[in-house]
Amino acid sequence: MHILAAQMNPTIGDLEGNRLKIERAFQYARAASADLLITPELALTGYPPEDLLLLPHMMRAVEQELQKLIQASQDLTAIVGLPRQNPHPLEKGLLNSAAVIQNGKLLGYYDKNLLPTYDVFDERRYFAPGAPPTLWDIAGHRVAITICEDVWQHTDLLRHSSYPSDPIRDLMSQKPDLLVNLSASPYNVGKKNSRFQVCQRTALALGCPIILCNQVGGNDSLIFDGYSLAVDASGHLIGEAAGFQEEFWIVDIFEKGDEKIPHHPDIEDLHAALVLGVRDYFGKLGLKKACIGLSGGIDSALVAVLAVEALGKDNVWGVSMPSRYSSTGSQEDAAILARNLGITLETIPIEKPFTAYLDLLNPHFEGMQGDTTEENLQARIRGMILMALSNKRNMIVLSTGNKSELAMGYSTLYGDLCGGLAVIGDLTKQQVYALSHHLNTLKPRIPQNTLEKPPSAELRPNQKDTDSLPDYAIVDKVLKAYIEDHRSPTQIAQAERLPLPLVQDLIHRIHLNEYKRRQAPPGLRISEKAFSVGRRFPIVQKWD
Amino acid sequence: MHILAAQMNPTIGDLEGNRLKIERAFQYARAASADLLITPELALTGYPPEDLLLLPHMMRAVEQELQKLIQASQDLTAIVGLPRQNPHPLEKGLLNSAAVIQNGKLLGYYDKNLLPTYDVFDERRYFAPGAPPTLWDIAGHRVAITICEDVWQHTDLLRHSSYPSDPIRDLMSQKPDLLVNLSASPYNVGKKNSRFQVCQRTALALGCPIILCNQVGGNDSLIFDGYSLAVDASGHLIGEAAGFQEEFWIVDIFEKGDEKIPHHPDIEDLHAALVLGVRDYFGKLGLKKACIGLSGGIDSALVAVLAVEALGKDNVWGVSMPSRYSSTGSQEDAAILARNLGITLETIPIEKPFTAYLDLLNPHFEGMQGDTTEENLQARIRGMILMALSNKRNMIVLSTGNKSELAMGYSTLYGDLCGGLAVIGDLTKQQVYALSHHLNTLKPRIPQNTLEKPPSAELRPNQKDTDSLPDYAIVDKVLKAYIEDHRSPTQIAQAERLPLPLVQDLIHRIHLNEYKRRQAPPGLRISEKAFSVGRRFPIVQKWD
Repeated sequence: MHILAAQMNPTIGDLEGNRLKIERAFQYARAASADLLITPELALTGYPPEDLLLLPHMMRAVEQELQKLIQASQDLTAIVGLPRQNPHPLEKGLLNSAAVIQNGKLLGYYDKNLLPTYDVFDERRYFAPGAPPTLWDIAGHRVAITICEDVWQHTDLLRHSSYPSDPIRDLMSQKPDLLVNLSASPYNVGKKNSRFQVCQRTALALGCPIILCNQVGGNDSLIFDGYSLAVDASGHLIGEAAGFQEEFWIVDIFEKGDEKIPHHPDIEDLHAALVLGVRDYFGKLGLKKACIGLSGGIDSALVAVLAVEALGKDNVWGVSMPSRYSSTGSQEDAAILARNLGITLETIPIEKPFTAYLDLLNPHFEGMQGDTTEENLQARIRGMILMALSNKRNMIVLSTGNKSELAMGYSTLYGDLCGGLAVIGDLTKQQVYALSHHLNTLKPRIPQNTLEKPPSAELRPNQKDTDSLPDYAIVDKVLKAYIEDHRSPTQIAQAERLPLPLVQDLIHRIHLNEYKRRQAPPGLRISEKAFSVGRRFPIVQKWD
Repeated sequence: MHILAAQMNPTIGDLEGNRLKIERAFQYARAASADLLITPELALTGYPPEDLLLLPHMMRAVEQELQKLIQASQDLTAIVGLPRQNPHPLEKGLLNSAAVIQNGKLLGYYDKNLLPTYDVFDERRYFAPGAPPTLWDIAGHRVAITICEDVWQHTDLLRHSSYPSDPIRDLMSQKPDLLVNLSASPYNVGKKNSRFQVCQRTALALGCPIILCNQVGGNDSLIFDGYSLAVDASGHLIGEAAGFQEEFWIVDIFEKGDEKIPHHPDIEDLHAALVLGVRDYFGKLGLKKACIGLSGGIDSALVAVLAVEALGKDNVWGVSMPSRYSSTGSQEDAAILARNLGITLETIPIEKPFTAYLDLLNPHFEGMQGDTTEENLQARIRGMILMALSNKRNMIVLSTGNKSELAMGYSTLYGDLCGGLAVIGDLTKQQVYALSHHLNTLKPRIPQNTLEKPPSAELRPNQKDTDSLPDYAIVDKVLKAYIEDHRSPTQIAQAERLPLPLVQDLIHRIHLNEYKRRQAPPGLRISEKAFSVGRRFPIVQKWD
């Protein structure tokens, strides 16, 4: 039995465009004589559609697009992910569904059972859970349909939730010949491996093969990595689709799998994920050009390399904005980077507006010491220059802050936090270094000096990040333990052999800077817990 | 039977402070010989604690505070709202509970049944639903306990959700003598009336009196109005607690109610809500001083009046930042307002930094027309000045944008959108006028000219808002119909007798400016659907 997994990159709310992608998959499936075509979860709206789902006229348009798909389904069987009205009045108004379409007819629906409502997922905001799965007769086989989370409860891989029902347990006695899963399973480092394990355990539990069709592409902060896969009844991998790109992938589902699993180093996937995230953010907005402040430091260098790969060198503009505190080394490093990348570099020194502000404000600051106010002024002048250039030229400013800085509040609101997208906002400083070194092994672009010099914001004479922060190796350890694993300060201090007051201070800074992050640009999510989405803490609170 | 409703103003996560408030209520109840004391929902953590709930060490601290409360409960019976661990493993890890405490002992828990997961509510993210309610014997009466949403399903007043279970229906056959409800029911214009209706219908359905204890105070964007109330078995109001302030309110629950309901004009409640929202935002952060850019326009004037009422005139600093396009009238209006309010007004003309930027940028703008870039520059210079003053003096900048502007994108990111709190960010322009006129009837403070002149951003010669926007009366109508009521463009055009292309254009602008609102300061919520919380739309989408 040949199944086509339409690993597609939908645009949220582009119902017609997404439907046309599905119809192209229909044509491809017919040409290849596939017995069944499956799409990702909510393929017609794209995932996650968020509150667009609450617009009744959007839901009417979904229904109309479904009718067109049914018309276009001659000579094939397809399972298409889409939201639908819940016929039962005493629950949420919608169901997260899979429409089973065959030869111009709608055979019926399977409705998702397990609705994730944690981290970046808000499915109970919109959807009611469906009835337990039953089997569908497709091409003479007994086919079980599931949607994403449905297959996770039966494993022990759900860290953040648990459900009273379990569709895989429900299916055991029904003995399906195969199971299909429509997914929109977002990328984070290591997620691909979890997804394989889930498929493996599901296949072993049911004693039948499984095929999972995943969404691909960037939607705001979320990146979907694709890597659709099929696993045989013994838990061996039959095959997998490409990562980080669209593919109409055909698999013979009763083929015997291989015990070996293709190895994708995490760092390569991280690289591909960020490039895809940037490319789709611009492409789906219909914009082409990016503008980046190049300080000579590693963060802006990495963002520039990624932007050039995503958008092309002619669409990336570097701007060097030296101040009285910028070292000549930094300016040279920015120039070398720009030359290596083949991008335009404009130099706009900030001394004149800085002096104008100081002249203007000093009478109002009389008798008060210099402090971070003057440092913030410099960062904000740079932000304003980037915004002015981007306004005039229809570009998006890429902000260059990393997760460690966002956590510590080591950034200026309306200054270096300006921008439309925080490309590396979910990378710790150590990940920034690791990825930068990796990219340079592929092709040396980031100046050696940028890679080696100690991090500095250069906002006062001889400033170093370590003047006010511990070593990033320590910051990053505490970050992961607290943000991702919810460990207590005491647990972290013990496990990492760090002084408790230091750990408490770092965690206090994380909470204290919630107000900055609330106004930060959306960042591309690459960890299990990113600041920009899926983490919801009050600004005003006294827990910490 | 005398019941004390501890209508308290908790601070999120301040477990010890909140516990001490509850213990003060215990003392008060004992002194007054109350038969029962009830708190608001989640009184120990404050509502909404958001992802603090996901920290296991916070939950351990909640358990410790509960033990102290139990110790402190000699000679009284109390029902205290708090989160607790869910003993059942196959569901969310927590329950939204009411601990029934009596004379040094924990009698047990009632766990909330209906968990709102819409708009600003995310309760299914944390909580599992509890078992149907049973009755508790308290002071010889059969008492039913419910928590907030539990009493709403039985009415037809839930616009956004519906539940398969209904605790009030479950209670009918059990015939309680009275029902208590622990609430954290946030304010919006008209909400108080809905809450009375819910209590009335619940009382009539069960044939017994009901007392609802509501939270009071501001927590980030949400304002809780208090107005705890009791309704007799015939649906008449026994009484209500104060609005917008803490009160230990004692009610004789079997007293006969009154058919008359005290009337609180919406505009007075709106006024009180915003003052409370500002006061608590500052107070709970431990900050005192605010800084506001006074343009001479109505938005900044209204924010200044509210800030003075919330913080005192000595804690509010007005800043006039005239440009080459500012009219002398506007500067005079700002000066008159400051004089009327008795606040300091600093004048910092922006011409010098504006010139410095133009000199710096013009070589990079060669051959390009003047456009909104230059307008944004002015707004951003003002934002930078306000931020510098606030950084140096430990003040919070209050942003002055209203909901109509936020909807239309008629504001500059990192410019007038700078600030820690958007005081009137959920008021339409028409509500801004209505509230300003109302405040002036109480005490004339806003200059007549500010109230009467046509709105203008004064960012280019003779600019008026109506140059690029339709009349605000039209904008506001479309806003409400689309944002709050989810009507389609066609429905709105027909109902409001407006040209369809105009309505489509306005709705398109709402979606187009999602990226600005994502980085806007939190705003005080006063409508059923505020931009800053409870509305979740993608930035990158092609639905509109």
